[in-house]
Amino acid sequence: MSLSALDSVLTGPLFTTPEMSAAFGDDSLVAAMLEVETALARAQARFGIVPPGLATALALIAPSDLDLVEIGRRTEAAGVPSIPFLKMLQTRLPPDYEPHIHKGATTQDLIDTARVLQMRTGFDLIATEIGVVLDGLIALASRYRATPCVGRTYGQHAAPTTFGAKAAVWLSGLAGVAAGLKPLRERVLAASLGGPVGNLAAFGAKGPDIADAFAQELALRPAIMPWHTSRARMAEAGTWLAMLIGALAKIASDVASLSTTEIGEVAEPHAPGRGGSSAMPHKRNPVSSTVILAAHQVAPGLAQSLVSAMAAAHERPAGAWHGEWHALPPLFGLAAGALKEAKSIALGLQVDPDRMTRNIALTNGLLFADKAAARLAPRRGREAAHEAVEKAAALVRDSGRHLADVLRDDPALAGIAIDDAFDLSAAVEAGAAWTERALKDARTIRLQFP
Amino acid sequence: MSLSALDSVLTGPLFTTPEMSAAFGDDSLVAAMLEVETALARAQARFGIVPPGLATALALIAPSDLDLVEIGRRTEAAGVPSIPFLKMLQTRLPPDYEPHIHKGATTQDLIDTARVLQMRTGFDLIATEIGVVLDGLIALASRYRATPCVGRTYGQHAAPTTFGAKAAVWLSGLAGVAAGLKPLRERVLAASLGGPVGNLAAFGAKGPDIADAFAQELALRPAIMPWHTSRARMAEAGTWLAMLIGALAKIASDVASLSTTEIGEVAEPHAPGRGGSSAMPHKRNPVSSTVILAAHQVAPGLAQSLVSAMAAAHERPAGAWHGEWHALPPLFGLAAGALKEAKSIALGLQVDPDRMTRNIALTNGLLFADKAAARLAPRRGREAAHEAVEKAAALVRDSGRHLADVLRDDPALAGIAIDDAFDLSAAVEAGAAWTERALKDARTIRLQFP
Amino acid sequence: MSLSALDSVLTGPLFTTPEMSAAFGDDSLVAAMLEVETALARAQARFGIVPPGLATALALIAPSDLDLVEIGRRTEAAGVPSIPFLKMLQTRLPPDYEPHIHKGATTQDLIDTARVLQMRTGFDLIATEIGVVLDGLIALASRYRATPCVGRTYGQHAAPTTFGAKAAVWLSGLAGVAAGLKPLRERVLAASLGGPVGNLAAFGAKGPDIADAFAQELALRPAIMPWHTSRARMAEAGTWLAMLIGALAKIASDVASLSTTEIGEVAEPHAPGRGGSSAMPHKRNPVSSTVILAAHQVAPGLAQSLVSAMAAAHERPAGAWHGEWHALPPLFGLAAGALKEAKSIALGLQVDPDRMTRNIALTNGLLFADKAAARLAPRRGREAAHEAVEKAAALVRDSGRHLADVLRDDPALAGIAIDDAFDLSAAVEAGAAWTERALKDARTIRLQFP
Amino acid sequence: MSLSALDSVLTGPLFTTPEMSAAFGDDSLVAAMLEVETALARAQARFGIVPPGLATALALIAPSDLDLVEIGRRTEAAGVPSIPFLKMLQTRLPPDYEPHIHKGATTQDLIDTARVLQMRTGFDLIATEIGVVLDGLIALASRYRATPCVGRTYGQHAAPTTFGAKAAVWLSGLAGVAAGLKPLRERVLAASLGGPVGNLAAFGAKGPDIADAFAQELALRPAIMPWHTSRARMAEAGTWLAMLIGALAKIASDVASLSTTEIGEVAEPHAPGRGGSSAMPHKRNPVSSTVILAAHQVAPGLAQSLVSAMAAAHERPAGAWHGEWHALPPLFGLAAGALKEAKSIALGLQVDPDRMTRNIALTNGLLFADKAAARLAPRRGREAAHEAVEKAAALVRDSGRHLADVLRDDPALAGIAIDDAFDLSAAVEAGAAWTERALKDARTIRLQFP
Repeated sequence: MSLSALDSVLTGPLFTTPEMSAAFGDDSLVAAMLEVETALARAQARFGIVPPGLATALALIAPSDLDLVEIGRRTEAAGVPSIPFLKMLQTRLPPDYEPHIHKGATTQDLIDTARVLQMRTGFDLIATEIGVVLDGLIALASRYRATPCVGRTYGQHAAPTTFGAKAAVWLSGLAGVAAGLKPLRERVLAASLGGPVGNLAAFGAKGPDIADAFAQELALRPAIMPWHTSRARMAEAGTWLAMLIGALAKIASDVASLSTTEIGEVAEPHAPGRGGSSAMPHKRNPVSSTVILAAHQVAPGLAQSLVSAMAAAHERPAGAWHGEWHALPPLFGLAAGALKEAKSIALGLQVDPDRMTRNIALTNGLLFADKAAARLAPRRGREAAHEAVEKAAALVRDSGRHLADVLRDDPALAGIAIDDAFDLSAAVEAGAAWTERALKDARTIRLQFP
Repeated sequence: MSLSALDSVLTGPLFTTPEMSAAFGDDSLVAAMLEVETALARAQARFGIVPPGLATALALIAPSDLDLVEIGRRTEAAGVPSIPFLKMLQTRLPPDYEPHIHKGATTQDLIDTARVLQMRTGFDLIATEIGVVLDGLIALASRYRATPCVGRTYGQHAAPTTFGAKAAVWLSGLAGVAAGLKPLRERVLAASLGGPVGNLAAFGAKGPDIADAFAQELALRPAIMPWHTSRARMAEAGTWLAMLIGALAKIASDVASLSTTEIGEVAEPHAPGRGGSSAMPHKRNPVSSTVILAAHQVAPGLAQSLVSAMAAAHERPAGAWHGEWHALPPLFGLAAGALKEAKSIALGLQVDPDRMTRNIALTNGLLFADKAAARLAPRRGREAAHEAVEKAAALVRDSGRHLADVLRDDPALAGIAIDDAFDLSAAVEAGAAWTERALKDARTIRLQFP
Repeated sequence: MSLSALDSVLTGPLFTTPEMSAAFGDDSLVAAMLEVETALARAQARFGIVPPGLATALALIAPSDLDLVEIGRRTEAAGVPSIPFLKMLQTRLPPDYEPHIHKGATTQDLIDTARVLQMRTGFDLIATEIGVVLDGLIALASRYRATPCVGRTYGQHAAPTTFGAKAAVWLSGLAGVAAGLKPLRERVLAASLGGPVGNLAAFGAKGPDIADAFAQELALRPAIMPWHTSRARMAEAGTWLAMLIGALAKIASDVASLSTTEIGEVAEPHAPGRGGSSAMPHKRNPVSSTVILAAHQVAPGLAQSLVSAMAAAHERPAGAWHGEWHALPPLFGLAAGALKEAKSIALGLQVDPDRMTRNIALTNGLLFADKAAARLAPRRGREAAHEAVEKAAALVRDSGRHLADVLRDDPALAGIAIDDAFDLSAAVEAGAAWTERALKDARTIRLQFP
Repeated sequence: MSLSALDSVLTGPLFTTPEMSAAFGDDSLVAAMLEVETALARAQARFGIVPPGLATALALIAPSDLDLVEIGRRTEAAGVPSIPFLKMLQTRLPPDYEPHIHKGATTQDLIDTARVLQMRTGFDLIATEIGVVLDGLIALASRYRATPCVGRTYGQHAAPTTFGAKAAVWLSGLAGVAAGLKPLRERVLAASLGGPVGNLAAFGAKGPDIADAFAQELALRPAIMPWHTSRARMAEAGTWLAMLIGALAKIASDVASLSTTEIGEVAEPHAPGRGGSSAMPHKRNPVSSTVILAAHQVAPGLAQSLVSAMAAAHERPAGAWHGEWHALPPLFGLAAGALKEAKSIALGLQVDPDRMTRNIALTNGLLFADKAAARLAPRRGREAAHEAVEKAAALVRDSGRHLADVLRDDPALAGIAIDDAFDLSAAVEAGAAWTERALKDARTIRLQFP
């Protein structure tokens, strides 16, 4: 069964990772639900609410003891998988313990907390990958900090920069989003224990203490208030994942563009068989960029559905909560796939400094037009200088002559030295300086990751 | 593996149907790809381009002959499943035929056409379900056409209507969207055959004829122009599915609301075990509405990613196309699940006319305030009448007296007959009349479905 | 006041048109509301429900007679502009007529029908522009039908095609969406007359007839059923507008990419001062493409909010309906701006066939690799041929030799004629043939537009 | 001109505030652009790059000295308002200073920094309002901490809670999002100074220092790296605004639902003329909730377009950047309107404890079913107890008897004391305890706001 390309045997290996699939798989969900009930039993035993043996009995039950297909079959009627899960669990428990499981809790506590446990694993996987991608980008930016290349705006040659500065933009873009993971984890990895209507009424004024103990057993954060219908956590997690993919999509967008045949300044690392074509034997398609951009195509829409779900009515909504199940795990799956491919780019991107130099020369000095205008401005006025160079640029395009020659021939500009306008050194120094700064910052952020 | 709740063994049975899962499953995709290559061989044999035996040889290969896991493994490198699929297929063919498969075609032709074949099955499944839901809603609207009930705006009692008129709104809303399926199918169920860059250059000026023959073999519509980067088809299909779910969400929204404890005018059909709670033995949650509203939570975001993908660069984009794979099949899965539950509502909704009558009486005549004001307007002026009734309404709320009594006691209104303002008959006649009209129209649309 | 870039004095002229701004401006809304009340009076006079003079009296009131700022001020309290509008209107009417306006109707009838009148104007404006853009694209595709150029997939050179075929993809993409306008208009340009709870109860069983007469007065389609909470119309209109922008974004995406400095095959028409830079005197930025792509950035999200709004509770929802006001008019504004710029591209795109020819030659024959492989396949087998050319392609990239030479030197391929694989004629013939077909179809669709 | 309902004279007063409209108005943008150029001049004068008098000369120019309509007219050609703005500015400067403005900078620096200044004002306005809303919710939760009411899940009566606990969920939901404003401001209120291609090449290695001085002049944060194409800042700001609206939508959703006629537990504060109907004199529609929910309908889609815009190609993209202009200011406008109405709710919500008590009694003890089952479980087993109460609940629904009586009559349950299951005290204590905890946390967060 694979309505999702992430779950498909055919396309799953391309779009996500087996580790992330496992983290959100059915076995993992059942294992997490077992872990939740066990932790609840442990916490409640500390308060003398349930017999101490309950947790031990629960810990002896393995996910494989439960018939997932049968749970699924009954979920169709129950509306949530927790109910058949609990019923099946009860049959696996000694009769003495049976009355005590899930005490004071509700379906949403069980499912939300289990989901949070899955998310913790998901964030761990993501953190590890982010670390590697940051390493790769740090090396890339550092190595090419002073390698001159074309800067482009609106797709047009604009002015020179360095390839390291480009990579530093990728790096600082990713590092900026990545730095948000730690505070995000602190906010969202919270246990849910609110009981039927979110006040954990079974335990009266002791509720908050029991909820805190429960969270502690799972090494999760206690929630100030049960969050059955405070869904910012899920919305924030989803939008962060979409922004992470967005930061990678910036890289992918540049790589796909810089590796087009005419530009050819970079190429995705070549692996045998990668990026081929069913028809065209010569093709080397940027597969990594494609996977990342495909994830970015769909992630923002999924994330916004989580923001939309925040309008959760009363003490549990009919639909908004369940809609989260459709959106959040796919976002983890997409992020894992995007990171996998970003890693490939960051660690193996083929960079062609010679081609960069040739591309700089392509436009006969037009790349230095703003510097030339800046040279003329003090003598001619800014607006007049701009216009003079604009006119000269048209002549360069029509004649194929170099901008420096055209400007030198303009009698109105006689006596103004413009030669150093065509020098790359300022751009290289600037690119390198910013790169250094971005590297320093990124190295600090890097320390937050495994 | 189940990053999608639709593919999960635990929650898939709740959120979608096995038929739709199968229609978009991996086996189905491989079978469809085989069908595509076979049809291509048949069409090209008609032009003497490939040996007639090729199609026969292809038709002998069963999806189960191919190792899907291995195809998936290689897809990770290739970037598309079509390449390893074709390579594996070639090893299953007699050497004489091997050079002739996939002639002039490209990956996107294979995958897009296979996807269209899946979509055809998906639309067939949806059409059948729509027919049943329409039947149920027709019966519902017809049966209760003259059953008086409260009309509500902004959640407030507004004025009387009939329950049949409510159901007629559901019916006409669904019928209006459903009527779009036929023209949609005609537009989107088109074969793709464009070759590497969408001009089918291998066959020169004969390309269009070959493409038409290929479409014919699959009983698909020929495309005026290869649509590798004209993606309106997919966007339109996705938004239609989202609008279908939206039309069902209108029903679900009303059912969930009308079945709240305080209103209690309807209830989802009760099946043993349905809508229970892990904590609360008395609960009967509106599971069907929940499933539909959960689908509606996520469908619009998925659909918009397909619209966004229309900016497909050049002759095949890096990412936008692949992003469709993440969005379109889940929309079919969500639609199937929403229809399954809408069917349950349409066929089995429990309606409580007595409760409707009691609810009408709840507000001591305020439900007739607009009619009362209309009675007063000819004598007092519209604005003054409105204000007089507004004042009386406040008195009703404070005193608990009936609006008719309060108005009768107002000396300024002496001599104006207002009693018939509190009569339900006009609302019932009106509700019934509109219902009849909606029924007539819906019955015509119903004929388009199996 | 300009929270929207469309309404801004500074950026509005860039992003939309004054005509579309006017169509959805406040004056237009008030004028449309006046028109609605007048039509209602006319229709009801035909049934003897209101005095015949009412319509005449209403027709004498000009929008400028009403104080819009005051209406706005009171809207803050009322929650809808219709209520203060009606109150102000009543003070402008002779006392005899005052009791008769807005009879049996409700706020939503007034606002929805007024909005539909605005949409009709909006669609008219759009239709006129679509016609011009289609003309431009038809001329473009026709003129360059046989002009060879590079076809690109994943940003890489793939195989040759013609520029006319590219333009034909733009054309057929736009024509396909444009063809949907007529049926869309038929569905969505419907009057709304349902009264407080959508059954027009004031008129009992005569409601449908009165509603039809009202629609007729406005030359709108009568609704089968009042559509206060059947919002597919608005969702469909919004998604169509987003798809229209999407079809233009395909063009803009290609133009922006093909006009990058390194590719340089096309340029947006040059107008003095257009696409300049505050810093770089030589820049000619693709402003038209930028405007279109900016619209495409935001349109899908706006459209999906309209689909989401379909879950409209009861007889009028609190919020979902009002949310449409935030989404639909901006979509018209964005579409108008995108069409304005698409017109500029379609009518004035600068095409450089020489550059296209030079780009074809850039890769030393690799562009013909699939054709070369096709030549080898019958003798070597498809898979082996693919591999041989793949190997040769690597040699071409490393050595700078031409693919034809490399293949000729391969002893394993001795005796296989491959020269004609490097001939453009098949691609040109194919491109021209498809272009002809697209032109024929588009010319038919063109007839639907002014 | 008002394609946006926020900018409309008719509906703007309902949907946003004049302060926020002014903050993002055209005058504000021009004033902010002037401020940016002045700060740049000041910073560069510190480095001896421009004459000290330039800043003084710029500071003498008032926004009203500039012809906004003319700038707008020329923006249509230029593609950005900054270019005509600068040209007009130059004509207002003494000739000696003219060559020195905007030195080394680019359009995007000017517009992005001006936008950030607007955002700072916007955040200030929002912060002030958040403070007031938090105050109101703190008072509400505190006052009703021990007021019993019905807890509802899936729209159904579930179990008792307190109204204070409900308000505490609103409070903690809003406080949780609000707490994100401070770190958000620190991240996003950064100056942009990168020059044509984001390396500030005009100043070589001194670039970072000059950029820092520029940021300092504006009291903005310096950016580690120019962020022309690192757009996480805008995406994060937009999604935070959407989540803020989402947290308010949770409140609005509950208020609209709890104030429905049948439930009637709360009412929006009544102001004369508020929430009336054009047809129904008795209506008091929840206008505040409606405005908030309408904002929530459209905000997530706008926000996701900002996430989508993160894939910004090269050193400035054609479209993605400009698309932000369509999305971000409306989000501020929507947030301001939602906060305005949330303030009205938080400060003036009418709460009806008597009605809450009556609603608790509506279901003859079913609200206590989970507690009753918990009482039976130790003796009967959890599953059996659940089933016994489920059966009894059915009997309650059919017979109208009280659950306590039905259970007492069940011979199988003889000897089990269940009376205290129907006691509200545990729920009240629990509700109060959680409320206290939420209050304590919220009071700390409250200190972050004016």
